[in-house]
Amino acid sequence: MSRKLRMGMVGGGAGSFIGDVHRKAAAIDGMIELVCGAFSSTAEKSIASGIALGLDESRCYGTFEDMIEKEKALPEDVRMDFVAIVTPNHMHFPPAKMALEHGFHVVSDKPVTLTLEEAEALEKIVGKSGKLFALTHNYTGNSMVKQARAMVAKGELGSIRKIQAQYLQGWLSTPLEKTEQKQAAWRVDPKRSGIGGALGDIGTHAENLIEYITGLKIEEIAADLGRFGEGRILDDDGNMLIRMENGAKGTMSISQIALGEENNLGIKVYGTKGSLEWYQENPNELITRWLEAPKKIYTPNGNGLHDEALAVSRIPAGHPEGYLEAFATIYKNFATHVNAVYEGKSSDTPDYPTIADGVRGMKFIYAAVKSDTNNAAWTKI
Amino acid sequence: MSRKLRMGMVGGGAGSFIGDVHRKAAAIDGMIELVCGAFSSTAEKSIASGIALGLDESRCYGTFEDMIEKEKALPEDVRMDFVAIVTPNHMHFPPAKMALEHGFHVVSDKPVTLTLEEAEALEKIVGKSGKLFALTHNYTGNSMVKQARAMVAKGELGSIRKIQAQYLQGWLSTPLEKTEQKQAAWRVDPKRSGIGGALGDIGTHAENLIEYITGLKIEEIAADLGRFGEGRILDDDGNMLIRMENGAKGTMSISQIALGEENNLGIKVYGTKGSLEWYQENPNELITRWLEAPKKIYTPNGNGLHDEALAVSRIPAGHPEGYLEAFATIYKNFATHVNAVYEGKSSDTPDYPTIADGVRGMKFIYAAVKSDTNNAAWTKI
Amino acid sequence: MSRKLRMGMVGGGAGSFIGDVHRKAAAIDGMIELVCGAFSSTAEKSIASGIALGLDESRCYGTFEDMIEKEKALPEDVRMDFVAIVTPNHMHFPPAKMALEHGFHVVSDKPVTLTLEEAEALEKIVGKSGKLFALTHNYTGNSMVKQARAMVAKGELGSIRKIQAQYLQGWLSTPLEKTEQKQAAWRVDPKRSGIGGALGDIGTHAENLIEYITGLKIEEIAADLGRFGEGRILDDDGNMLIRMENGAKGTMSISQIALGEENNLGIKVYGTKGSLEWYQENPNELITRWLEAPKKIYTPNGNGLHDEALAVSRIPAGHPEGYLEAFATIYKNFATHVNAVYEGKSSDTPDYPTIADGVRGMKFIYAAVKSDTNNAAWTKI
Amino acid sequence: MSRKLRMGMVGGGAGSFIGDVHRKAAAIDGMIELVCGAFSSTAEKSIASGIALGLDESRCYGTFEDMIEKEKALPEDVRMDFVAIVTPNHMHFPPAKMALEHGFHVVSDKPVTLTLEEAEALEKIVGKSGKLFALTHNYTGNSMVKQARAMVAKGELGSIRKIQAQYLQGWLSTPLEKTEQKQAAWRVDPKRSGIGGALGDIGTHAENLIEYITGLKIEEIAADLGRFGEGRILDDDGNMLIRMENGAKGTMSISQIALGEENNLGIKVYGTKGSLEWYQENPNELITRWLEAPKKIYTPNGNGLHDEALAVSRIPAGHPEGYLEAFATIYKNFATHVNAVYEGKSSDTPDYPTIADGVRGMKFIYAAVKSDTNNAAWTKI
Repeated sequence: MSRKLRMGMVGGGAGSFIGDVHRKAAAIDGMIELVCGAFSSTAEKSIASGIALGLDESRCYGTFEDMIEKEKALPEDVRMDFVAIVTPNHMHFPPAKMALEHGFHVVSDKPVTLTLEEAEALEKIVGKSGKLFALTHNYTGNSMVKQARAMVAKGELGSIRKIQAQYLQGWLSTPLEKTEQKQAAWRVDPKRSGIGGALGDIGTHAENLIEYITGLKIEEIAADLGRFGEGRILDDDGNMLIRMENGAKGTMSISQIALGEENNLGIKVYGTKGSLEWYQENPNELITRWLEAPKKIYTPNGNGLHDEALAVSRIPAGHPEGYLEAFATIYKNFATHVNAVYEGKSSDTPDYPTIADGVRGMKFIYAAVKSDTNNAAWTKI
Repeated sequence: MSRKLRMGMVGGGAGSFIGDVHRKAAAIDGMIELVCGAFSSTAEKSIASGIALGLDESRCYGTFEDMIEKEKALPEDVRMDFVAIVTPNHMHFPPAKMALEHGFHVVSDKPVTLTLEEAEALEKIVGKSGKLFALTHNYTGNSMVKQARAMVAKGELGSIRKIQAQYLQGWLSTPLEKTEQKQAAWRVDPKRSGIGGALGDIGTHAENLIEYITGLKIEEIAADLGRFGEGRILDDDGNMLIRMENGAKGTMSISQIALGEENNLGIKVYGTKGSLEWYQENPNELITRWLEAPKKIYTPNGNGLHDEALAVSRIPAGHPEGYLEAFATIYKNFATHVNAVYEGKSSDTPDYPTIADGVRGMKFIYAAVKSDTNNAAWTKI
Repeated sequence: MSRKLRMGMVGGGAGSFIGDVHRKAAAIDGMIELVCGAFSSTAEKSIASGIALGLDESRCYGTFEDMIEKEKALPEDVRMDFVAIVTPNHMHFPPAKMALEHGFHVVSDKPVTLTLEEAEALEKIVGKSGKLFALTHNYTGNSMVKQARAMVAKGELGSIRKIQAQYLQGWLSTPLEKTEQKQAAWRVDPKRSGIGGALGDIGTHAENLIEYITGLKIEEIAADLGRFGEGRILDDDGNMLIRMENGAKGTMSISQIALGEENNLGIKVYGTKGSLEWYQENPNELITRWLEAPKKIYTPNGNGLHDEALAVSRIPAGHPEGYLEAFATIYKNFATHVNAVYEGKSSDTPDYPTIADGVRGMKFIYAAVKSDTNNAAWTKI
Repeated sequence: MSRKLRMGMVGGGAGSFIGDVHRKAAAIDGMIELVCGAFSSTAEKSIASGIALGLDESRCYGTFEDMIEKEKALPEDVRMDFVAIVTPNHMHFPPAKMALEHGFHVVSDKPVTLTLEEAEALEKIVGKSGKLFALTHNYTGNSMVKQARAMVAKGELGSIRKIQAQYLQGWLSTPLEKTEQKQAAWRVDPKRSGIGGALGDIGTHAENLIEYITGLKIEEIAADLGRFGEGRILDDDGNMLIRMENGAKGTMSISQIALGEENNLGIKVYGTKGSLEWYQENPNELITRWLEAPKKIYTPNGNGLHDEALAVSRIPAGHPEGYLEAFATIYKNFATHVNAVYEGKSSDTPDYPTIADGVRGMKFIYAAVKSDTNNAAWTKI
């Protein structure tokens, strides 16, 4: 019988956006329970956050090192099963490495690390540890994204010829980092974000979504990055040409200065037999087009879906699922996998993003920055 | 400091739709924990369901009576705080009554009871018990519904003149109750559903939404009900004229034989200064129209919202929240209220549907059936 | 070989909305040419309007009587072929009668006459004259409306069970008739509009659309009319229950005080096999729903259409056609019929609304007013 | 008083798509009358087409040379006022040149000529002739495009930072040119289309729309063209990065192999104060986003429009105008200008695309092809 997994969290103290998202997402399906955390940079703040979350004070730690060591020392049926890392990018690698090396599974926010070198190092560490590692490219958890991927995989769209992807936000249209806004401050700071700004924060989601849905690798890109916010060192906008390994071509546009856009991740994929279109702001709708039939619109748990899409719908058709539910699917599939490992089942690996996706994302960031430095010259990923 | 509330559940065993929804909704905000349940009609099934949910076998009960009595006997810091009732309609009243009389708060699915008499009896029981009672008219938990209500309350739409409401589903287009489908079977059975079919299942949601958003009572209705499914005794369709207490007029259309409709609850409200339009299948959008300004679209956590709407958004604009999140808001506000009571705070009552909404819903069902019997004659609610 | 028809117009002088619409609609397909008119109530104004339209002064008449007589006296290859009547309602019958009795075909705006008696008289006159009579229920000219009708007629939706129709405008939300606005003034005046206000102006369009698409007659209605504008005698709002001849039920909602609505005519039709939905503000899209297949969206000249829909599309898919094009289709089919008559072809009657639709519309208005007078009692049409 | 202009047409015989569009567009506003044409490559076909259009046989010519010479010889009050050129691209320049040199105004379809050299030569000819020349970049005739341009011009969007434009069709997804389809055959043939395929047919519309709305020139592009149809020499797909003269960046994506897309021209423009979004398939809606206000949707003749948008709406809000109406606006403004010239009025030049737009479009095509040849290197327009 599967048991409820115990989660320890690194980051995500009071005022954090993404920490709260991870906690809610982990809670929805009743498979995971938060038991401990190193939520903040000081022990006092961490304890305050943990208590507000209903944790026992004894399991609110001042540092992730402390948490990993002390949890390791607890009895097996008490200690955390895995660590969820929800810190800014520069603090992804250290706790991930230590957790894996101490025998804990890991869920990490993206991009996987600060640098490509760290990502590649982490890939080796994961391999050596034999532990599971999930990366929260949450949008791949959407039912309609699963349907899209399944349709392409089954050949229903034919051979893919053209792709358009976008991830458009407007929240950095103004110099928000010069206010008290903590979310903005670290995202525009190379020390905490790495060499990519919007590239790392949202670009990797778009890159991952393209490759996830099409099952094809992006081979090379030509990237023209923008730094529109006064004084910004990192990109806050990017326009790219892409070429896929099979000869398909396309564009990718990302931005955090697309004023008025909220969280407009979208993709269009055109094949020789059919096409599809999906937007995460309206996630319960997959638009498909066909050579001879009228446009068809799929919905979660609606008519005509593949099993892959049905598997992740929690509620009947017409009951919209959103961002948290898709995020929760990453946790759910990860938890299912952890339990399968515990139970010694040689199961098929459930579908969630892994360290390989993380390395791929870092390569994408590096290729984009290199291309931009060379005036948008074609650059292999 | 608020503490996590302990929930006991009546109904919601394996295969239940709404039980699972209640559990997920209660879990999202981390304020509530399922500790016990009488999930099914036999002890064996109940225990199996409870264990699958990670409960201790000792707290999986064979009957709600057993659960209420045994939990009452547990130490105060262990026993459940409240009972969530997720059974078919005929099994709402008995556990609600018993729970309240044993000092437990109650969350109940709608319609509140099988009959109007029960509803009125329950209203008295709630009053006498001094306990809290929440009814899960979940759609009022949507951020955009809160915004709509706030806009009307602040007079931004002027005086309301016209209303159109609809709740359209198509899942009973075929005689599903003649298959193994459990959801269909009890809904078309007067013994388990009461005198209303679609009226009780979805009509009360529409009625509640109209009164919630406009702050006005429906004064009288003229209802023409349909029973399209072969052999159906209860309505599976209804078309109604409505007159509001302030002189506004409108229509309400409900159906479970509107083939192809998934869960299309929607409302349009027209005033002397502005108008609004909202659909639960696309819940992250509130459409408003104005005498001299262009159409404006509000989004959760987006620009220009009232505090009432901001208060229930969990994630930044553009990150869609759906059915479960709105449902969770009912639980969250209920839990907040329970904790306030525990802490002796004379707080304002948080906003969630109560027994009064339940009685109102039953009166609506009775008025509709009476009107229909009289060939759609005007009937006071 | 078909020849260009010569049109004479009654009404439609400077400042008229609908006269201009008729002229543009008649021009689009190059089958009709405006040659004369009695555009206004005085000869001076009429001549000024005619000259501005490029007409010869000699064919700008001061009264319709003058026009009909003088044109009749012209050589056959010069005189007008038909009269287009675009006056307020009270001025439909007199010129229609005289034109028919003088051997001219007629195109008339709706509602067909001021009173039901006139409509029935006109029906006899048309029959006796042997001339053609078209009524501009323009929305039935839309490609997607033709597709909808064809789908129902071919049984693709199965048996019709439920209908929702609406025609919502907001332009009379304020007392516009108390300003200089000519359009408003006559529409709220029983002497010029007849016994129906919104009923005649837009309600008949909704009624006609229901019967056109479903091929079913509305058997009886229960109408609750509103007169929200201060001092208004005629309805400016209406909510109705409808029962179709085959047992289908539904609602119809019309309004000219639905603030912010522009011209929102829409219909939903639910059958036992499929359903459809269409809105004239977004006319290039027909939404259909199915028992087991996903939602399908048809577009003009797009994939999967019936011949009836293809026949009225002028341009390739994706090139939107709008209000004028649908209006033009009425003229086009009328002109085709007139030419067929001239050429002695015993052709199938092309598809356009006729005097029978006009009589039907008047009966609808009368039934609605009677029902409303009896507190929304069921009233046969 | 303005008089009706007389139009002669080159091309547009039976079976032509665009010829029929020009005729309908020219007819809508009643300002233009077709009087003659050289519709086809043989005199017989030309006469047959002309007679079917209701022309006098004497004015149906076998060649454009014949038409221009013979019309020139007619009395001034009989001869055509201007020539409309609706042939494939390679036949734009010769009749345009001859018409201008014989004193006729010209309306031409786009792209303006076969080659850039011809375009530049034509620009000189137009200048020397003193005649008017209109290019049918029809989409700029849409009311909402006018509104968009006006909003940018008045600074309401602030400084423009980012642009996304697309023009997506799918009709050449299959090798249609190998069938009898005449539309496809010439478009994939360099002899008749020039060096651009999709670039010339639809790319120039996108380029023109960007520059029209933003009032900014595209400075350089990096173009990656596709030739997906087997054996195609010309591009049938293109992905481009663009840089505007003011430092704004963006993407442009065009395609005729985007399977299932009908005629999806769209644009998004992001500024420092506001943003806008428009699609020609849904032309009656302009979506705008703002720093602090909710999204606002403008509609033709709706609330809050600038005069530039109001000027081109023919019918009240909510009555959709489409492709033909926007096309007609080009003709209307051209006709207004011609009449102003006739009347000796030193009027402001009405707003329609001219030879300068034509030269600009050819430069765009040439830059795109050059960039593509150089592996998408940045190329100045």
